[in-house]
Amino acid sequence: MFISFEGTEGVGKSTLIKRVHEYFLEKNKEVILTREPGGTALAEKVRNLLLQVDDTEVMCPDTELLLIYAARSQHLSKVILPALRDGKVVLSDRFTDASFAYQVKGRGLSKSKLEILNQTFVERMPDITLWLDAPIEVGMSRARARGQLDRFEKEKLSFFSKVREGYAELHRQQPQRIYKVDATRSEQEVFKQVLEIFESKL
Amino acid sequence: MFISFEGTEGVGKSTLIKRVHEYFLEKNKEVILTREPGGTALAEKVRNLLLQVDDTEVMCPDTELLLIYAARSQHLSKVILPALRDGKVVLSDRFTDASFAYQVKGRGLSKSKLEILNQTFVERMPDITLWLDAPIEVGMSRARARGQLDRFEKEKLSFFSKVREGYAELHRQQPQRIYKVDATRSEQEVFKQVLEIFESKL
Ligand SMILES: Nc1ncnc2c1ncn2[C@@H]1O[C@H](COP(=O)(O)OP(=O)(O)OP(=O)(O)O)[C@@H](O)[C@H]1O
Ligand SMILES: Nc1ncnc2c1ncn2[C@@H]1O[C@H](COP(=O)(O)OP(=O)(O)OP(=O)(O)O)[C@@H](O)[C@H]1O
Ligand SMILES: [Mg+2]
Ligand SMILES: [Mg+2]
Repeated sequence: MFISFEGTEGVGKSTLIKRVHEYFLEKNKEVILTREPGGTALAEKVRNLLLQVDDTEVMCPDTELLLIYAARSQHLSKVILPALRDGKVVLSDRFTDASFAYQVKGRGLSKSKLEILNQTFVERMPDITLWLDAPIEVGMSRARARGQLDRFEKEKLSFFSKVREGYAELHRQQPQRIYKVDATRSEQEVFKQVLEIFESKL
Repeated sequence: MFISFEGTEGVGKSTLIKRVHEYFLEKNKEVILTREPGGTALAEKVRNLLLQVDDTEVMCPDTELLLIYAARSQHLSKVILPALRDGKVVLSDRFTDASFAYQVKGRGLSKSKLEILNQTFVERMPDITLWLDAPIEVGMSRARARGQLDRFEKEKLSFFSKVREGYAELHRQQPQRIYKVDATRSEQEVFKQVLEIFESKL
């Protein structure tokens, strides 16, 4: 079972995934918690390149996309696929849907480039994707406390609105995999919605 | 005019490219000298990840390929294409042919993956490619003096034999672009062969 957690900045993905992790541990399931971009030592180095703010050199959209897929292919083959083969539950804080939302809808990169990379380099998609949805301002105000902004967090509100619309589009197209969770609610209520999804799906 | 320099380790690419650079400078041509993987500050950081020896995590072939193309897309759009647009001569120490020779022939990655990346992310191919060819041992013994081996240099002789065969295959398929230079000769004679190629081509 492979479950990914998606949504715009500060919407509560990392908070929820920890709770879901504990939930599976309490049920004595073998479960791993991982994230993208990242998930291995090498992929985390690529993540650093992606998030780094460098005022002297703008990262091209194609470069950003290819770095994300480089990290993803390492993450898939070294962490996700082996864990799934061992029968573990894999929880990932973001996965390929984020590339559609951020790089295609946010940055305006061609959808066909993304589809080509997905077809060529992504052997396994999540079984369930939990999309935490809330107005951009909600996540922004929740995340604001965290200090220095990374390269993505520095984007304008209009960028994140496009990202949110990207997730909405994916949800409409693949409702059997991508579940919308109302992330404006309390942590407790968000988790409750997720339990209901698990019960309906499993 | 875009000229790339190819060949196995230590065969004399960097030595030759400097000489060709001086040659164009003396002719009062605007010329830039660059290299792959690398060529911009960000792409050089990706190069470091590619060359780094890390005994704790093996880099997957797909990851290696995608990192190379991430660096390449940045290099193309920030350095090569702008220079060509300005009418400059671009000299690059390695380019896409190296990906065929090293990743496809050397590592055994599928040729179709490479072709997909070339079609999707490489807008411009070199006008002339100078392939410096010599038996692997020749380059090895020339390069040996340089000290610590990087992740590629640590490969076995059989790996480099496959890489050399990869260059030979490309040369057979695209003789109008890829010129074979006998790199067993002296620096002076190698450069002379190149001048003859320039004269025949230009
Ligand atoms: N349902 C919730 N209601 C109120 N606050 C929340 C809720 N969920 C998380 N938070 C708080 O909002 C902040 C951001 O949460 P979190 O780090 O989980 O978001 P995120 O989606 O992982 O952010 P990022 O996209 O930056 O990784 C944290 O301070 C967290 O405690
Ligand atoms: N034609 C030649 N004959 C003899 N020695 C040479 C010749 N060309 C270069 N060398 C010497 O061989 C060594 C390797 O040359 P160089 O660094 O140019 O190779 P390279 O192909 O760029 O290597 P690498 O693949 O590691 O970048 C250097 O010490 C250089 O001076
Ligand atoms: Mg988070
Ligand atoms: Mg060199």
